Amino acid sequence: MIYRSSVRKVYVIGIGAGNPDHITVQAVKAMNRVDVFFVIDKGHLKDDLAGLRTELLSQHVEHGRYRVVEASDPERDRTADAYRDAVVDWQDRRAEIYQQMILEELGEDQTGAFLVWGDPSLYDGTLRLLDRIAARSTMSFEVESIPGISSVQALTAAHRLILNRIGRPVLITTGRRLAAGMPTDVDDVVVMLDGGSAFADLPDTDVDIYWGAYVGSRDEVLVSGNLQQVKDDIVRIRAEQRERKGWIMDTYLLRRRPEER
Amino acid sequence: MIYRSSVRKVYVIGIGAGNPDHITVQAVKAMNRVDVFFVIDKGHLKDDLAGLRTELLSQHVEHGRYRVVEASDPERDRTADAYRDAVVDWQDRRAEIYQQMILEELGEDQTGAFLVWGDPSLYDGTLRLLDRIAARSTMSFEVESIPGISSVQALTAAHRLILNRIGRPVLITTGRRLAAGMPTDVDDVVVMLDGGSAFADLPDTDVDIYWGAYVGSRDEVLVSGNLQQVKDDIVRIRAEQRERKGWIMDTYLLRRRPEER
Repeated sequence: MIYRSSVRKVYVIGIGAGNPDHITVQAVKAMNRVDVFFVIDKGHLKDDLAGLRTELLSQHVEHGRYRVVEASDPERDRTADAYRDAVVDWQDRRAEIYQQMILEELGEDQTGAFLVWGDPSLYDGTLRLLDRIAARSTMSFEVESIPGISSVQALTAAHRLILNRIGRPVLITTGRRLAAGMPTDVDDVVVMLDGGSAFADLPDTDVDIYWGAYVGSRDEVLVSGNLQQVKDDIVRIRAEQRERKGWIMDTYLLRRRPEER
Repeated sequence: MIYRSSVRKVYVIGIGAGNPDHITVQAVKAMNRVDVFFVIDKGHLKDDLAGLRTELLSQHVEHGRYRVVEASDPERDRTADAYRDAVVDWQDRRAEIYQQMILEELGEDQTGAFLVWGDPSLYDGTLRLLDRIAARSTMSFEVESIPGISSVQALTAAHRLILNRIGRPVLITTGRRLAAGMPTDVDDVVVMLDGGSAFADLPDTDVDIYWGAYVGSRDEVLVSGNLQQVKDDIVRIRAEQRERKGWIMDTYLLRRRPEER
């Protein structure tokens, strides 16, 4: 005779980069099996995230049985010299919040979900946090990751670009790393999480930039061209948009010429 | 008085990596505006692609007015020494076929679509071919790219992975380039289009591999572990699967330890 213990299930669902129609049929089916949606309040982002979430739930979830549980993100020390340590410490505090939410709000046979911008596998920490919780607690739960359209894909689609050139590699990196310069061995570089404007400090004269903010959403702004010619425009537009909305999410591709497509 | 000439429209729609539920709401809406679906016969892949396409069209396209037009891919010289030249020449011949299909089959005010595996921006040549056609012909048409879940995203979701580690870059490259060795400055490398098994020749003992074939589809096979310990298994499984199905589509992540998540 086999006793099956019930297992909590937690979905991490990619909801795309800002366009509600980025949602996949797989994500919609998963959302319809969810009892509790966990929401982390990300400060300035809150209203836009909340708006998109509400739109997705009301449009795609047929049953009305789900609950939405909110918590605040812990304060993050962005001034720390040791960037990685600060992130890790912040993620520990975040893990505690997540753990408590799951433990208190999710029944043993229930299904929870985190809805995340873009794709859960690209510069999103939710899966990492859930691993951390699983490692530090006795609570057992099963995690399933549902892919979503990332801001990189929304960017390339908006500019009608192919990310790679024929037979050539693509580097995905951060603004912090780009500050050290364009890599010499890769000609196509995607930059995510650039809190400043690292592109504006590059001396390269043989590079084009394809930039976008809020890509895929109604607020989408796109600029492309010779980096040296358009960088000041981007810096200006970026500041204006951040001022207007209170937050900015932008991504860009740097492409060393000659351009093949 | 303004004369507006009607403009042909061509969608390039990413349909995901093999799971019909990867399709986005945006793709479904676009598919419902299409008069003619263009299909390129890719030899061995044909039956599986055709099956997925038929499933998607019958499940999601509500009107019955669309037509499906097929053409064969030109023969490709895979033995050529000059790989890039061979690809470019082959793409020229391919462009001719696409151009003829669009010209002959798409009325001036109609909408056509190419359904492509994965995402149109990642190692897919359709957008590049349409640019080529636009440049060489007097026929005018408007192109729109609709993002789709790529095999990289299906792979990371299946292994429940985050592609990047905190604040670190990711390289997307080809099997051909990996043959020169793991890069020294990037610890997370995604390999696509590996016609052989380039991973099996790497000497690295500090690398883990997360491999998948037909990821997201009913035929999905996954293997992960220490590269040196599992590489022979992967080579064997790869050969068996290719034999069984007549074709293989696989992708993998190479991750230099220490593993953080």
